[in-house]
Amino acid sequence: MRTHQLVQSWLEEQLAAGHLAVGDRLPGERMVAEQLGISRASAREGIRVLEAMGIVRAGVGSGPGAGTVITANPGAALGAALRLHMATSHLPIEDIVQTRLLLETWAAAHARPAAPAMENAAALLEAMESSAPDEKEFLRLDALFHVALADAAGNVLIGAMMSSLRESIEGYTLRLTRTLPDWAATSARLRAEHRDIHNAIRNDDGALAAKMVANHIEGFYKEAGFSGA
Amino acid sequence: MRTHQLVQSWLEEQLAAGHLAVGDRLPGERMVAEQLGISRASAREGIRVLEAMGIVRAGVGSGPGAGTVITANPGAALGAALRLHMATSHLPIEDIVQTRLLLETWAAAHARPAAPAMENAAALLEAMESSAPDEKEFLRLDALFHVALADAAGNVLIGAMMSSLRESIEGYTLRLTRTLPDWAATSARLRAEHRDIHNAIRNDDGALAAKMVANHIEGFYKEAGFSGA
Repeated sequence: MRTHQLVQSWLEEQLAAGHLAVGDRLPGERMVAEQLGISRASAREGIRVLEAMGIVRAGVGSGPGAGTVITANPGAALGAALRLHMATSHLPIEDIVQTRLLLETWAAAHARPAAPAMENAAALLEAMESSAPDEKEFLRLDALFHVALADAAGNVLIGAMMSSLRESIEGYTLRLTRTLPDWAATSARLRAEHRDIHNAIRNDDGALAAKMVANHIEGFYKEAGFSGA
Repeated sequence: MRTHQLVQSWLEEQLAAGHLAVGDRLPGERMVAEQLGISRASAREGIRVLEAMGIVRAGVGSGPGAGTVITANPGAALGAALRLHMATSHLPIEDIVQTRLLLETWAAAHARPAAPAMENAAALLEAMESSAPDEKEFLRLDALFHVALADAAGNVLIGAMMSSLRESIEGYTLRLTRTLPDWAATSARLRAEHRDIHNAIRNDDGALAAKMVANHIEGFYKEAGFSGA
């Protein structure tokens, strides 16, 4: 077992046994190294891997917020891993469209009208409508809107998968968007569709919202010249 | 940006530009450090993070297979991240059951009867039927069987999500299994259900296979005393 895996397993045991919990400070490198019988450099590496996975967050300074804190952000590792795998071209675009359809129609069907994330989604709609953002900013808000719907459905795992998927395809989506013949027309249509989806969820009509989300996603890829969805 | 993120971004650019590809040897620590203007220790850390994410694999020895090779195993990072998040208890069991239902019924509905993974699934069925494996070994084969069905559906991303999810809940599933009143009876039932699901896919009846998978998953959690599915 490599040392970064040793550090992972150790933390997993500490968490499972209740010796450590989310929000706690992680013991220092020296302590981790001693407990596991590894070098300080190996302990540091192991902790960096945990950081890259969104399991711990390194604090700065020397106040009470300093040190490395155990956090829980499953999306971070998923996002970074998916983005790199996108770059290796081992994730065909068909697979991404299909996965988006699966996760996002589920989310739309299960989003709860009164979930706090729906307020967040409404604010994002307004930002997309009022300030005429450029493609890049529009897509950033657009992605956050879709993630907010997933959050409104209340499944942590599906939300994290959605969020990491959106993050990992950001660059790709931007390139696709720049091939569109008429961005003003497309963005107006996307805005109207977002509003309709949001309304359907507010009216507790999950079946309609799911159908609209499927059309919304398929329509975008079709317009961008990708018909394999 | 932290140094491990610098190394990730650098590799992402190299891959996207076609300067490096899956199967290539990664440049050594010194080269990476020089190119990025960081210390060798930082470069090493960054490469370890890539390894933990399943993006590169460290070779051993000094032959042609030595050195760090660019690979593509999206499941590795997802699995490790999910397992740790399970340990922090930030993934409620309801969310896992729901996610399994979503991904696995999709996979059963889309699995192709002639996919090579179906042969693999058949071999796993035989291993579960012939050798009366103990709980732990049975669950290992069981997880591989479900992952094989996802592979037969041909979506790399959904397959990777499934596989990492199964890996991350392995310990939990084993504890759940040990609370079952009659393992012999349960395992006989699970084997029969696996066989039926496999046959439905072979007969190209995706709708039936999906329904059976849903009953199979819900039945297991219900029998283990978890009724929130």
